[in-house]
Amino acid sequence: MSKHIILTIGRQFGSGGRIIGKKLADTLGISYYDKELLALAAKESGLCPEVFEKADEKASDGLSHAFTTGFSYLSMFVPYADILSNEGLFKIQSDVIRKLAERESCVIVGRCADYILRDNPHCISFFIHDKMENRVQRVVERQQITVEQAKDLIVKTDKSRAAYYDYFTNKTWGMSSSYNFSIDVSVLGIDHTAGFITNVMERR
Amino acid sequence: MSKHIILTIGRQFGSGGRIIGKKLADTLGISYYDKELLALAAKESGLCPEVFEKADEKASDGLSHAFTTGFSYLSMFVPYADILSNEGLFKIQSDVIRKLAERESCVIVGRCADYILRDNPHCISFFIHDKMENRVQRVVERQQITVEQAKDLIVKTDKSRAAYYDYFTNKTWGMSSSYNFSIDVSVLGIDHTAGFITNVMERR
Repeated sequence: MSKHIILTIGRQFGSGGRIIGKKLADTLGISYYDKELLALAAKESGLCPEVFEKADEKASDGLSHAFTTGFSYLSMFVPYADILSNEGLFKIQSDVIRKLAERESCVIVGRCADYILRDNPHCISFFIHDKMENRVQRVVERQQITVEQAKDLIVKTDKSRAAYYDYFTNKTWGMSSSYNFSIDVSVLGIDHTAGFITNVMERR
Repeated sequence: MSKHIILTIGRQFGSGGRIIGKKLADTLGISYYDKELLALAAKESGLCPEVFEKADEKASDGLSHAFTTGFSYLSMFVPYADILSNEGLFKIQSDVIRKLAERESCVIVGRCADYILRDNPHCISFFIHDKMENRVQRVVERQQITVEQAKDLIVKTDKSRAAYYDYFTNKTWGMSSSYNFSIDVSVLGIDHTAGFITNVMERR
């Protein structure tokens, strides 16, 4: 695809959002960023990747904890030491996301990318959700855990993502008006949902 | 279209949801119900249409008020008199919606139809939203009022619709997970949004 396009994907845990994002990147021939963002943020800041992984899309309490218990010594070595806080980490990641979005067409999953890129005219935001029963089934299969464990993990992860999103943006996680398109995967299935999004991008 | 299909449309005030609903009904060659539901509910119940119009998609306080101040005398004449309450009016309207959805393919706008038809396998639910500036412009042009008046009307009407929806369903108005698809009209415009929904219905 020759147009410069940025797709951001917010998603419920277990909804298939990541798989859809990858399919879209493949179909459109553009880059895909999910966990990859953490490594890039680490490289950019000089912090070790574990700092970003530990705090990734966690609510602000978790972030504070990471920085107050184990990483204060970093302030002696790293360029971003003066802003090592919840907001500091978010800023580093935001800078990385903005640079990527300027440089190339890509799919970015999670990390409030829709908010960070709100002024980027090439950006279209999606939120992927699904029925609880389908999400449970996906998580059980993927992580080889029980149905009860999967349900528990889904509720906790969504709560954490919502707290992270709501803290760092002026929007509400999962609210229709926070995204351009919200899609229930159960209607068309994963493949056709990806096809449908490709269609939207081509019609623009 | 030969398949039996039901499209429900929730919408922010001024988002163009009604126009999109009408276009869809025309394109798909199926019936359209919005305010028409009120007349049908009145006919079904023997109550005068004004009862339904006065309480239409208003929060429960408004509904209670309508029934406690002016309509108690109706209990002497009408078949539904024993259930004349917020819930009673909702039940009459729900029965009408369910009957229509069984009888024919149609587009139904508002009135918690997505919730009422949650067990109908032919039903796909949409929520239509738009940027505030576009909504204000639509309302100003349609109702010939000032920008300030339009903003005020939008906020009040959305609040009222949300309160009505949240009271009568176990879902949250405007939340992505309450609908199969949520669409920001500003991305594709009204005509292409309608085209896009038609496309979804054809792919199912």
